[in-house]
Amino acid sequence: MDHPLFLASRRDLLRAGALTALATTLKFPEGIVARAAERSDPFSGLKVGITSYTTRKLSLDDSIKAVKRVGLSYISLKDMHLPLKSTKEERQAAAQKVKDAGLNLVGCGVIDMKDEAGMRNAFEYARDAGIPTIVCTLDPSNVSALDKMVKDYQVRVAIHNHGPGDKRFPTPDSVADAIAKCDERIGLCIDIGHTIRVGVDPTQAIRKHAKRLYDLHLKDVTEAAPQGKNIECGRGVINLVSVLKTLRDIKYQYHVALEYEINIDDPLPGMAESIGYVKGVLATMSGL
Amino acid sequence: MDHPLFLASRRDLLRAGALTALATTLKFPEGIVARAAERSDPFSGLKVGITSYTTRKLSLDDSIKAVKRVGLSYISLKDMHLPLKSTKEERQAAAQKVKDAGLNLVGCGVIDMKDEAGMRNAFEYARDAGIPTIVCTLDPSNVSALDKMVKDYQVRVAIHNHGPGDKRFPTPDSVADAIAKCDERIGLCIDIGHTIRVGVDPTQAIRKHAKRLYDLHLKDVTEAAPQGKNIECGRGVINLVSVLKTLRDIKYQYHVALEYEINIDDPLPGMAESIGYVKGVLATMSGL
Repeated sequence: MDHPLFLASRRDLLRAGALTALATTLKFPEGIVARAAERSDPFSGLKVGITSYTTRKLSLDDSIKAVKRVGLSYISLKDMHLPLKSTKEERQAAAQKVKDAGLNLVGCGVIDMKDEAGMRNAFEYARDAGIPTIVCTLDPSNVSALDKMVKDYQVRVAIHNHGPGDKRFPTPDSVADAIAKCDERIGLCIDIGHTIRVGVDPTQAIRKHAKRLYDLHLKDVTEAAPQGKNIECGRGVINLVSVLKTLRDIKYQYHVALEYEINIDDPLPGMAESIGYVKGVLATMSGL
Repeated sequence: MDHPLFLASRRDLLRAGALTALATTLKFPEGIVARAAERSDPFSGLKVGITSYTTRKLSLDDSIKAVKRVGLSYISLKDMHLPLKSTKEERQAAAQKVKDAGLNLVGCGVIDMKDEAGMRNAFEYARDAGIPTIVCTLDPSNVSALDKMVKDYQVRVAIHNHGPGDKRFPTPDSVADAIAKCDERIGLCIDIGHTIRVGVDPTQAIRKHAKRLYDLHLKDVTEAAPQGKNIECGRGVINLVSVLKTLRDIKYQYHVALEYEINIDDPLPGMAESIGYVKGVLATMSGL
């Protein structure tokens, strides 16, 4: 018999649609049937997807295929897959393509909002495509303009921290400080790679900024230092077990967007390994 | 601060070579530095590799590249990568190629030992290539001949169970029963996919046959029933958390060989996802 830690509760089992098929086939111990619950949601309630920066050398069609190949159903589009200067019709067509493939278009960016015109264009871009959250960066002096504009659109904004070398928003704290008095639709996109590179523990940052965390860039890096490079999840220095546990603890409901930045000509194996790792972590934790 | 469950012990940290680099860079909480221990051995002491049946449409060179791409260092060769009718020199050259790539050649097979001549050839094949374990199947009536022959060679034999439809060895128990009185160098290769398809819990089988378990085919399947098909680890019905926990509990020291059987023209993404999943499970468990 398996250790009770690794068994789902009976209620979990009843929730899982796959149970019936299993139960009719077999006279198996619970340890096996318990897997039915996990199969029904391998991400334990987290909305795991990718930023399409990951597949930036692939077309939108091929990016969608890659996302589906690794078993995900969420995507955030970067501008090479939906140009900022597109028409409303082009935005709607791209959104429809994503939807028709069975995926959820939950974000866009990172968009650099250079001025008020760029800011307004980004809001219209997101609204036209039905995108609920814009991941962006901007000059801190433009935050008050952003705060005024966000009231006109039914779109959230998540400001992205870019770590060492980013003079605007290196850390999650720097974002939180700048938006403290803003409309609550303005929040953070914590990039855990850039966060650890600047000397901040991603787990602590997620917990601290849980209330206004509207997007998250999931990745791993080779070193917890400015020179740290992107690498497959699980191969680097970020404690992803702790990060994922914390996202579950805070009942985080927005996009957990894998941003895999290397092997740009052939990102699929690294995406797959990273997503496999995330599923392995969540499967093991879900038994606790 | 992270939950104490997810922190490695101080002793683990000191063992990890990567610690020094981290500690000099940062003034970080333990939750981050703990990852250094895991990075030094992402498989927690298990010898995870692949059966080259996984890459059966790739050359030996490309199979080696695929194994290295997903971060593994163990391989078991199937006959398309080292023909059974090869010369001693060809066997040594293949073994050298694997070694030169930094991989460990720890098995071969599955070899169907049709008669005593085939049996002797398999032993010579393994001995010539320096392979410590032959994974095989044979007619149960030939087990006594195998028992005599194994005494002449310094090679272990692991008899593979093939599930429903295998009239010779459908289950791990059927292998164990047949070899109960044999030389202890004859043992089992439990194929967890075929095992669950025949209605046996892989975890229970591993625990029961721990003493003579000399190889393991790691995989996942879509159904715990004869019609179950191979699928990426973590997507199917096998409780791999429990399987991996049990392999650690019994201090299993032989090959944990991923046998990913689908997408034969492009196996790398599925291999990568499967290995990522295994690493995620082990990383999470190693914090317990």
